[in-house]
Amino acid sequence: MQVSLKRAIYEENDRLAAAINAGLRRRGIYTVNILGSPGAGKTSLVSRLAERLSRPLSVIEGDVASDIDTRTLRALGVDAWQIETGGDCHLNAPMIEAMLGKMKVEDAAWLFIENIGNLICPAEFVIGEDLKIVVSSAAEGHDKPWKYPIIFARSAACILTKLDIAEAIGFDEAAFRKGLETVAPGLPVFPLNGKTGEGADHIASWLIAARKAAAGT
Amino acid sequence: MQVSLKRAIYEENDRLAAAINAGLRRRGIYTVNILGSPGAGKTSLVSRLAERLSRPLSVIEGDVASDIDTRTLRALGVDAWQIETGGDCHLNAPMIEAMLGKMKVEDAAWLFIENIGNLICPAEFVIGEDLKIVVSSAAEGHDKPWKYPIIFARSAACILTKLDIAEAIGFDEAAFRKGLETVAPGLPVFPLNGKTGEGADHIASWLIAARKAAAGT
Repeated sequence: MQVSLKRAIYEENDRLAAAINAGLRRRGIYTVNILGSPGAGKTSLVSRLAERLSRPLSVIEGDVASDIDTRTLRALGVDAWQIETGGDCHLNAPMIEAMLGKMKVEDAAWLFIENIGNLICPAEFVIGEDLKIVVSSAAEGHDKPWKYPIIFARSAACILTKLDIAEAIGFDEAAFRKGLETVAPGLPVFPLNGKTGEGADHIASWLIAARKAAAGT
Repeated sequence: MQVSLKRAIYEENDRLAAAINAGLRRRGIYTVNILGSPGAGKTSLVSRLAERLSRPLSVIEGDVASDIDTRTLRALGVDAWQIETGGDCHLNAPMIEAMLGKMKVEDAAWLFIENIGNLICPAEFVIGEDLKIVVSSAAEGHDKPWKYPIIFARSAACILTKLDIAEAIGFDEAAFRKGLETVAPGLPVFPLNGKTGEGADHIASWLIAARKAAAGT
């Protein structure tokens, strides 16, 4: 009973997510679902990319509570919109559909969706994105790929943040990358210093290339 | 349909959790449900407490994947047992009941249950514990109480880790405590340096006092 209901919820979500993605693609919008733990640096990544990407850019911020990140991004001049789930541990396709009805994403824009801070549930749901990227902070420790393999396996890139405190925290980057190679072979890893923006140029270039590749198919 | 099924699942879980707790209490076992983000320092907390508490102590380790933390604790001589959920984002009472049938917790022992690294779903489920404590790392940022209020509101104490990198990360402890006072007024906060063990004495004393208070009721 529980299992078949769960499957029905997934199937309904996936159908709606495919429809959302098709609608966004028709308008030339490229959509990125940003995943990661609480405090991994998802909002910093978005703000660093907003500085570097030349097309119009809109952001949907997902949080269990508060609109802190939306206010942060708006203060930087970013077109950001808040979904407050009130308790739900991940965004789903119906939430995105409802939000897209309220906000105005420009044609040919970037749409970044910052998911709830959680390494588990958000990995299970497609929400209309072209690709997922996962943000992982050195402060979380190098064992995270082994402990949360699904989120890394389903992401198209891993952004590795807070490496400036790696030594203080005892983070072993080689061990992290070894774990990644096991659970998500070939996954590109981009270091990012969220405070200085160092590393964000490479991520922006990679995203632009991914977008071009998708448009070519 | 979804909502009433969800309620039924919660109610069944809560009944079983109450039965588990009653059984453990009858045997003089005191049970602590340890919550926190991935990499917050939950396992370090357990190992530091194991060094300081004189009664027998058993640990249930919850992870989506891997038995890394169980091996870490066993290497320190701690009686640790692994629940690998395979994808589930929180422990529930049936998982604990099944594990208690396999392991041997001594009468009058401490039972620590390290929940899945997740600030959302584990807060929603009782699993037989006498109390919950939440571990929050400075690396996650000072806005976490505002963003994840439920987990702080349901915990009996907050362990604040990785303060040695607070300055490097830009963590504002006063802002963190202000958020806590709003979402969980009066919640005691215990700083802990997981690497040196500094602060663990106070946490052990507080737990011993909580246990005595519970036995007196």
